[in-house]
Amino acid sequence: MKRKLRYGMVGGGQNAFIGAVHRLAANLDGQIELVAGAFSSDAKNSQTTGEQLFLNPKRVYGSYAEMAKAEAALPADERIDFVSIVTPNFLHAPVATTFLKAGFHVICDKPMTLTVKEAKALRETVRKSGKVFALTHNYTGYPMVKEARELVRSGKLGKILKVVAEYPQGWLLDKIEVEGQKQASWRLDPKKAGSSSCVGDIGTHAENLGRYITGLKIDELCAEFTSFIPGRKLEDDANMLIRYQGGAKGVLHCSQISCGEENNLNIRVYGIKGSLAWRQEHPNELKFIPKGEAARTLRLPFGHPEAFIEAFANIYLEAVAAIRANLAGRQGAFDFPTVDDGVEGMAFIETCVKSATSGKWTKFPKL
Amino acid sequence: MKRKLRYGMVGGGQNAFIGAVHRLAANLDGQIELVAGAFSSDAKNSQTTGEQLFLNPKRVYGSYAEMAKAEAALPADERIDFVSIVTPNFLHAPVATTFLKAGFHVICDKPMTLTVKEAKALRETVRKSGKVFALTHNYTGYPMVKEARELVRSGKLGKILKVVAEYPQGWLLDKIEVEGQKQASWRLDPKKAGSSSCVGDIGTHAENLGRYITGLKIDELCAEFTSFIPGRKLEDDANMLIRYQGGAKGVLHCSQISCGEENNLNIRVYGIKGSLAWRQEHPNELKFIPKGEAARTLRLPFGHPEAFIEAFANIYLEAVAAIRANLAGRQGAFDFPTVDDGVEGMAFIETCVKSATSGKWTKFPKL
Amino acid sequence: MKRKLRYGMVGGGQNAFIGAVHRLAANLDGQIELVAGAFSSDAKNSQTTGEQLFLNPKRVYGSYAEMAKAEAALPADERIDFVSIVTPNFLHAPVATTFLKAGFHVICDKPMTLTVKEAKALRETVRKSGKVFALTHNYTGYPMVKEARELVRSGKLGKILKVVAEYPQGWLLDKIEVEGQKQASWRLDPKKAGSSSCVGDIGTHAENLGRYITGLKIDELCAEFTSFIPGRKLEDDANMLIRYQGGAKGVLHCSQISCGEENNLNIRVYGIKGSLAWRQEHPNELKFIPKGEAARTLRLPFGHPEAFIEAFANIYLEAVAAIRANLAGRQGAFDFPTVDDGVEGMAFIETCVKSATSGKWTKFPKL
Amino acid sequence: MKRKLRYGMVGGGQNAFIGAVHRLAANLDGQIELVAGAFSSDAKNSQTTGEQLFLNPKRVYGSYAEMAKAEAALPADERIDFVSIVTPNFLHAPVATTFLKAGFHVICDKPMTLTVKEAKALRETVRKSGKVFALTHNYTGYPMVKEARELVRSGKLGKILKVVAEYPQGWLLDKIEVEGQKQASWRLDPKKAGSSSCVGDIGTHAENLGRYITGLKIDELCAEFTSFIPGRKLEDDANMLIRYQGGAKGVLHCSQISCGEENNLNIRVYGIKGSLAWRQEHPNELKFIPKGEAARTLRLPFGHPEAFIEAFANIYLEAVAAIRANLAGRQGAFDFPTVDDGVEGMAFIETCVKSATSGKWTKFPKL
Repeated sequence: MKRKLRYGMVGGGQNAFIGAVHRLAANLDGQIELVAGAFSSDAKNSQTTGEQLFLNPKRVYGSYAEMAKAEAALPADERIDFVSIVTPNFLHAPVATTFLKAGFHVICDKPMTLTVKEAKALRETVRKSGKVFALTHNYTGYPMVKEARELVRSGKLGKILKVVAEYPQGWLLDKIEVEGQKQASWRLDPKKAGSSSCVGDIGTHAENLGRYITGLKIDELCAEFTSFIPGRKLEDDANMLIRYQGGAKGVLHCSQISCGEENNLNIRVYGIKGSLAWRQEHPNELKFIPKGEAARTLRLPFGHPEAFIEAFANIYLEAVAAIRANLAGRQGAFDFPTVDDGVEGMAFIETCVKSATSGKWTKFPKL
Repeated sequence: MKRKLRYGMVGGGQNAFIGAVHRLAANLDGQIELVAGAFSSDAKNSQTTGEQLFLNPKRVYGSYAEMAKAEAALPADERIDFVSIVTPNFLHAPVATTFLKAGFHVICDKPMTLTVKEAKALRETVRKSGKVFALTHNYTGYPMVKEARELVRSGKLGKILKVVAEYPQGWLLDKIEVEGQKQASWRLDPKKAGSSSCVGDIGTHAENLGRYITGLKIDELCAEFTSFIPGRKLEDDANMLIRYQGGAKGVLHCSQISCGEENNLNIRVYGIKGSLAWRQEHPNELKFIPKGEAARTLRLPFGHPEAFIEAFANIYLEAVAAIRANLAGRQGAFDFPTVDDGVEGMAFIETCVKSATSGKWTKFPKL
Repeated sequence: MKRKLRYGMVGGGQNAFIGAVHRLAANLDGQIELVAGAFSSDAKNSQTTGEQLFLNPKRVYGSYAEMAKAEAALPADERIDFVSIVTPNFLHAPVATTFLKAGFHVICDKPMTLTVKEAKALRETVRKSGKVFALTHNYTGYPMVKEARELVRSGKLGKILKVVAEYPQGWLLDKIEVEGQKQASWRLDPKKAGSSSCVGDIGTHAENLGRYITGLKIDELCAEFTSFIPGRKLEDDANMLIRYQGGAKGVLHCSQISCGEENNLNIRVYGIKGSLAWRQEHPNELKFIPKGEAARTLRLPFGHPEAFIEAFANIYLEAVAAIRANLAGRQGAFDFPTVDDGVEGMAFIETCVKSATSGKWTKFPKL
Repeated sequence: MKRKLRYGMVGGGQNAFIGAVHRLAANLDGQIELVAGAFSSDAKNSQTTGEQLFLNPKRVYGSYAEMAKAEAALPADERIDFVSIVTPNFLHAPVATTFLKAGFHVICDKPMTLTVKEAKALRETVRKSGKVFALTHNYTGYPMVKEARELVRSGKLGKILKVVAEYPQGWLLDKIEVEGQKQASWRLDPKKAGSSSCVGDIGTHAENLGRYITGLKIDELCAEFTSFIPGRKLEDDANMLIRYQGGAKGVLHCSQISCGEENNLNIRVYGIKGSLAWRQEHPNELKFIPKGEAARTLRLPFGHPEAFIEAFANIYLEAVAAIRANLAGRQGAFDFPTVDDGVEGMAFIETCVKSATSGKWTKFPKL
């Protein structure tokens, strides 16, 4: 197929953080072209954003519903191939459902939905639609994370004993949600973010990273949620002990109030034959220690550091490959987070909430 | 007092690890002289060790009881000033009690005793004796750990919110306790090590480090113990969630089966105004991040790295200063772990065991 | 101007390294569109490359001369705005000259030309043309390099005393130029690379980085070139001592045979009031040490690492801004390497060659 | 020989830096006992120092000459076995010569003498005396430096191509020599320090480290000396290019005015089959990169960091072993810097001075 794919975006108006990141990631490889958008519930913001992105004003819409309808009505060689959803959490499911039903592939930000129930419903919609659904657990796009998974899969670590995953941040140390910081206000609002702030936003990245690298399934967990800053309805810090199926143990903690931390997502996996360690802030290095041997630092060849946007772009690239295959009626194996990862992620969040509320070890549900 | 102090050692025969470390630490500052010892329950090992250490053979004893008696009978300008106890855990209390009662000051390895009950009894003996009792929580001897405590005390971190302390090791990944490795076999034997292996050996160091730096008291904790290597009666890995009095939260984990880890004791303390991070394997660096400012790396002046033995020696130095003060009938403020730290440490271990057994959050006892 | 800029590329056919990097950098921000190319002297390679990049086959040309002519003949709203030159060194000057004379802006890879003489001629052509000429000294696009320059400019380092700049690589440790590795063979061929391999390729980056950050001008230098691998006509390792105007001293070394090194470009600048250090392989960190204070690690906000391509894209972004301003008849201050940097760079290379040949300290020419 | 060795010290009075370090190093292993000293040219300082060190006042001398004479007159089982010389440079040769002639072994700080001529004379005295002479190039006492040498000797790096050695410090950035800082004032005084300050003090450590690890001999060098701080008679910064016998090339630079640097001695050795890197401020880590394989971090077993004093103690330990062997009439192979290293070091300093003065490449003399 000798053409770029065309996509539209829902969310991501001026000043939105993650929408701009999605666009940079989508641009990087020159395989995709942004042609439409419903960037904001504020129609003017949406139009201005469209102009800045050099879009045809006719394809900048006032609502996602209008966009789905109008795009579906365009000729096949004009309309978008897929939609990218970068709204607050509570809109993920309705927007995704609308576009899937209108016949579009979907790339959606995480966490996938507000609840496990909603997640399972979306999974059903995806299955029925036959469309590609990619969830941007972007950290699994880092080459060294993929290399880490390969180390585990190839047996170089042997049976996994212990996983330590951390995602400390510090951006909510001040009560910026009352000062109108947009990100902060919706992420701490249960109606827009769901039943969890910190775990939903970043704990789920740590959980996904552990699952991606090790393939381990959670059996049960014990969670401790804290709202350190007074007046918050959702937690801004969470610590979890995890029991994996098969006997491995885990420690996972995440925080939005850890002073000085930016995006210090990191993971250590200890196996009976070796261990590995990776850290998002030095993403091109993977430490691997085979039992009885010297620590090795694995790197990408050539020493030209790749980083956050390249990793994000890798998710887009794989999703685009899947969409191209789907368009061509081909099968294939692709490496990007899917609706199933979304369901797992939602179950992680809900189980954490349950344990933190009860103060007890809590079983992870069957999905 | 224009003379070196004289000391004797119980334990620390040939091939013992920690006894040799104590001697190097005691040597370093040229303030103390080893003059007596009961180095091993094997009298021949004891004599050979004494010879290697240039001791007068008459002062190399067959048992600690004999040593306490014989030394007490020597003239004041000959007999030891204090004893250093470096035996397996189960002997700490009886040996310490014997020497305290015989009128000697005591420097003792940790954990202090086998149980909290024994710890409280020893505390009572110390109080009655009026002697100095120092417990070698040696990691608190690092200058940068003292600096970290100063940062907290001076209010530079503000109210503490979260503490993450880790002590992963990997030396028990193989079942070396059945191959006659001496350390491994007693540390995994409940009769000699007590009710915990990993927490008693190193978890308690992480706990002590957190307490030393932050001054926080544990309110309750939830622990998960695992014996990853089949056939072990005690845990070789432990993960804990902690609730401190006053509302701070903690994550503490330790391990003896984390492949590739050596003595990676490290701590991060997050306060409302700043955070700090310290790592034993790069002991001369302390990271301090004031809110809203750039991360700072604090170091010792002059860049001549100090390390493990110097930190250990600092404990000896402070204990020696306390002993000199005691001998001179002076008061003073000294910085070394005491019998009270030993009681706290034993309570930490016992509370962890209780929580890990019940699978529930468990209150920390009043002491 | 509500449209993307259009550009064409000369060089960068299949398997070329730097051409692909330029395209990713150009894609990233969604401001530029590749519409034409003469990707290879091999017409078939050129066409295949064009197809992979979704280009209109009519705008994939057999030669750069043909491309310049044909594009100039297209209507203003179709033809390219600028050309990106990513060929081996010996073609930079003729291609740039051709396109400048045909009325196009130019973005050109470094080193700018084969000789200082050629560089000065190109400078003259640029001046006469009134067009934008950007040289991709891409490492100056890193945000932390710009921050480093700000530290110097703001006086935080005081008068600069010493600069240490290094660019070790190891990719030419094996004689891959005889095994058909394309990069290696032209870079070691004096006809295609010029009078220097290692300094021309990477030493000039280190020199440019030092100049960008400090603004210091070289007064004289003493260079030592070595061809460690037998049979090479150009140096694969170079060490230089530098005397800057005003009294600062420099050490600059670069290598293509330093085993294990990838792209370890790094710089340390020592001033009378403070020092800084930056390293390309951890590009988001800048170490700054004010005199008498603790070392500080400066970072980008948010901890999402940016890297090589983002830095490269920043050069494109600034050049594009300059081109837009030029098209709109506006003036402005832009931050990208220009033809003057190219002339300086060529003088650095030639002076190094002269010193290495004579074994003497050599004056840097007036330009 | 079942006794500790006895030693005396010349220099090292109150507030002297390196004398205290020597004593700590000598204490560490419990093999040596300080019994005599002429600690200062100021007799009172000498006596006070002796008291603080618990010495018999009769063996605290007013001058080194008196000490040599008096100690030689004592019975064999009382008098010192060796002397440790920790004075400013200009006294090294006369003190060492005096004690060697009086029949004592010598441990001496570096640089060995003021001139090559004096160094050769001392070499002759040592040879005639049959006594052990150890020079405290203490950085070669680090276990990882010894491991680095083993990597080279075992051929794991193949033929050495390039050596980069650095020793930046910043303690002389302020003109503290005029404020009475004792170290600073003698180190910048040609009469006491010799013809070089920075190279004599620390450049020679970098040179010795390179020689120790690689075994390479310097063929010629080109040096650039600068006195950045006005009014200094000796250089406070030096940069050198080096040609080794056999074709390897070197870059060596050292500084006393590099803001923020403490004792950042470090070395990288690049061979045809692999490379290594070591840094004094993280002394327990050695990076080794075999060609085509992942970087490995080699460490001491057990993760208890050793540091500056332990490395220093290792020099003492080896020297003591040599002295014991000498006393017992035994031969043996020992690993400590000798008078030959002293002669090489002095030649390095003098050749640097010669090159810096002439501005030309300068042959290294035959010794």
